Amino acid sequence: MSATLAELATRFDCELKGDGNVAIDTVGTLASAGETAIAFLANPLYRSQLQHTRAAAVIIEPRWVDDCPVAALVCDNPYAAYARIARLLCPRQPRPAGVHASAVVADDVSLADNVYVGPHATIGPGTQIGAHVSIDAGAVVGANVEIGAATRLEPRVVIMDDTIVGARCVLHAGAVVGSDGFGFARENFEWLAVPQLGRVVIGDDVDIGANTTIDRGTIEDTVIGTGVKLDNLIQVGHNVHIGEHTAMAALVGIAGSARIGARCMIGGAVVIVGHIAICDDVMVTFHSSVLRSISEPGTYSSGIDADVASRWRRNAARLRRLDESQRLSTE
Amino acid sequence: MSATLAELATRFDCELKGDGNVAIDTVGTLASAGETAIAFLANPLYRSQLQHTRAAAVIIEPRWVDDCPVAALVCDNPYAAYARIARLLCPRQPRPAGVHASAVVADDVSLADNVYVGPHATIGPGTQIGAHVSIDAGAVVGANVEIGAATRLEPRVVIMDDTIVGARCVLHAGAVVGSDGFGFARENFEWLAVPQLGRVVIGDDVDIGANTTIDRGTIEDTVIGTGVKLDNLIQVGHNVHIGEHTAMAALVGIAGSARIGARCMIGGAVVIVGHIAICDDVMVTFHSSVLRSISEPGTYSSGIDADVASRWRRNAARLRRLDESQRLSTE
Amino acid sequence: MSATLAELATRFDCELKGDGNVAIDTVGTLASAGETAIAFLANPLYRSQLQHTRAAAVIIEPRWVDDCPVAALVCDNPYAAYARIARLLCPRQPRPAGVHASAVVADDVSLADNVYVGPHATIGPGTQIGAHVSIDAGAVVGANVEIGAATRLEPRVVIMDDTIVGARCVLHAGAVVGSDGFGFARENFEWLAVPQLGRVVIGDDVDIGANTTIDRGTIEDTVIGTGVKLDNLIQVGHNVHIGEHTAMAALVGIAGSARIGARCMIGGAVVIVGHIAICDDVMVTFHSSVLRSISEPGTYSSGIDADVASRWRRNAARLRRLDESQRLSTE
Repeated sequence: MSATLAELATRFDCELKGDGNVAIDTVGTLASAGETAIAFLANPLYRSQLQHTRAAAVIIEPRWVDDCPVAALVCDNPYAAYARIARLLCPRQPRPAGVHASAVVADDVSLADNVYVGPHATIGPGTQIGAHVSIDAGAVVGANVEIGAATRLEPRVVIMDDTIVGARCVLHAGAVVGSDGFGFARENFEWLAVPQLGRVVIGDDVDIGANTTIDRGTIEDTVIGTGVKLDNLIQVGHNVHIGEHTAMAALVGIAGSARIGARCMIGGAVVIVGHIAICDDVMVTFHSSVLRSISEPGTYSSGIDADVASRWRRNAARLRRLDESQRLSTE
Repeated sequence: MSATLAELATRFDCELKGDGNVAIDTVGTLASAGETAIAFLANPLYRSQLQHTRAAAVIIEPRWVDDCPVAALVCDNPYAAYARIARLLCPRQPRPAGVHASAVVADDVSLADNVYVGPHATIGPGTQIGAHVSIDAGAVVGANVEIGAATRLEPRVVIMDDTIVGARCVLHAGAVVGSDGFGFARENFEWLAVPQLGRVVIGDDVDIGANTTIDRGTIEDTVIGTGVKLDNLIQVGHNVHIGEHTAMAALVGIAGSARIGARCMIGGAVVIVGHIAICDDVMVTFHSSVLRSISEPGTYSSGIDADVASRWRRNAARLRRLDESQRLSTE
Repeated sequence: MSATLAELATRFDCELKGDGNVAIDTVGTLASAGETAIAFLANPLYRSQLQHTRAAAVIIEPRWVDDCPVAALVCDNPYAAYARIARLLCPRQPRPAGVHASAVVADDVSLADNVYVGPHATIGPGTQIGAHVSIDAGAVVGANVEIGAATRLEPRVVIMDDTIVGARCVLHAGAVVGSDGFGFARENFEWLAVPQLGRVVIGDDVDIGANTTIDRGTIEDTVIGTGVKLDNLIQVGHNVHIGEHTAMAALVGIAGSARIGARCMIGGAVVIVGHIAICDDVMVTFHSSVLRSISEPGTYSSGIDADVASRWRRNAARLRRLDESQRLSTE
């Protein structure tokens, strides 16, 4: 796919600086893009690369356009414009429609038009698969599942019985949706399994990362709102609700029955305990613990940057005596 | 399945308050249960929902029964009673016995009665599968494995060679048991793989969560005691021993050769370093690090609750100078 | 396999103490080894087991040889010598060459000599598989992948399109390599997927742990250097570079575009934020957070050892007011 810079400017509502006739056929970084590629500047960390770029053009904010040595597409959100242009120039190759001979599809499965079912995939009885859905090699879809149109299951995804998945979702390789929640009643120091009878219900345009796990509800449902983006190796416990357009980086853990608001941004390896609520528009930074409900939008942290080990050991030892030492000093 | 309230009271040793003739056919939460459902109150957080419940009855402790506006089954451990009642009313549908035509089962595998082997599952030579075992789609069971009666392998579980799994275990989707431990000898700044020759030995009634990984021992075995419950995305390193009836929430990491006692409760995302011992009856709260052995039962913590980021940044900066500032102040 | 102690001493360049004619046919721990087994002492924690060992011989450093009650192979790096001897005595059984009838291999796949492709494995078009490669049950290898000689894919590994894997690598069960990076542009509080066009390029002699995930680059490649060892459940974000012979324990998270140097050792559950650089020869201890670049070799920490919960609660409460209290005390 190729387009002129002028065509891209028009199509994606950018202001054009420079020669609009240049043909662009791919994308690149500021450092690596060649003469038919378009690059972008979104993260100020990479601004120093601007002056040496050999890209045909750069997608850039107005405030930095004067520093750009090549043609530019100027707009307020260069990363979003880049995303759209990259999708135009470098589209994903869709899977061909059809069910592979080795797939095991129950007799009463409803397959809409243009569905792809790859080698060794299995689909259980009563399941409904929307149009243009792609179910890749080795994926396992249980019974009575509903999958919305144009959703894509990468290899070896597992969707357990009764799960509802919306349209245009992407479930990355190895993700597990609808596994039993971790529900046990303690009795005489032993654990008695509590049946996990709820479902997982996933909205539209949701991404679920590789090897991420989402447990089904205990009685009611685990709910993932429309537009939610979950990175790899995330754990979502039973009965959790995640509000629309919330994004979470890898290795986040959300314990059972927590409620996360809409448009939140949860950093990598954050841990959120169970039975609490986080309101809309909260950002939690890397490796923090959320042990209480949060009711005010804003940014929250408890991550501690690593220090030279010998110094950290002394500081951590002081921390372990902090209450004692402060009580002494105020006596 | 349906039962009268009086039948449930008798069968599960509860005291009945109200009309014993009401027919109960399902379970629900205090907030959602309808007129043929039984709910429970176990977590005081949900006590306020009691007064508005429309459940047919509530399983409840004696101390709260007076607040219950509907019929009640009164007992000391409502959550355990709920678990039993839910299992009676909403039983899991067992897989039908039989080996799917697409499964690959080695010639000398010993399959006891009523075993289910799903599509695209594979079972290696020398393996023995107990009665009523269910091995779901895409699961891979290696050579010389033993699986006890009524154990359930969810889709895509991997059990590597020589593993021993007890009876009535549940291995959730994507779990990996018996992978090589992370054993490398360093030599001239390179790493030399150390053969991982031990096994994983799992007791009865063990649950292993989705995408959890348990490494085989280096020389001796990794041992998971009877009744242990492991949530999703947990890492158990080589040579680890976990005592009976210990439970661990998601994303816990246990480094090699650690020994965890019986009846411990390990919170989500706790990290336990290698070569240490934790005694019986220890609870470790969310996101703590255990860097030394623990020899006294009790509750241990080092998780820090997230705070408003600007305030946390100032506190964390002070922490990085804590030793220095305290030394100065005492000079 | 069996060898005399004298043969082992000669072959692995150790000094022999005691009877060289003893036949050794297996390995063991100091505590468990029997009379035909060789044990080793590498970790001083286990030194007390030396005096009671019933091993035929012990691999040991010169400084401890006088305490050894049995024959010894003396060398400077006993663990490395043990690794080599264990590999000789207890070699891994290679998979037999051949493609299982149930595997789905695209027509134009190039398979070198002595390749094993197990049941229900799939290999996409354009892929090249080197000699002696083993692709175990249920593994999914995408299109245009290259896998170097003698690399081993354990069950259910997924390698997405265009990935390059070197020679003699081991990818453990459930690992996912080449999944889409977590790249989304935010626009009007919604997320727009950014195409992930780069590859994952993995050097020789790399180990990738069970259920570990490595994302493909956004534009350029995610690069894993030769000799890197990654444990289980690790997340490697898009565009990350990991230098040669770096090792990382389980549950580490590396956010996008971070650059990790060579010969680093990253402890379990460490989190490294995106867009930073860590120089060569850095060690980061258990459960630390790396929130800024590190430019000096050395050991870094921010993990906090769990304390008795009631005491920790008081200390953590003081920490939350640390800045305030110190400002007050200096006014």
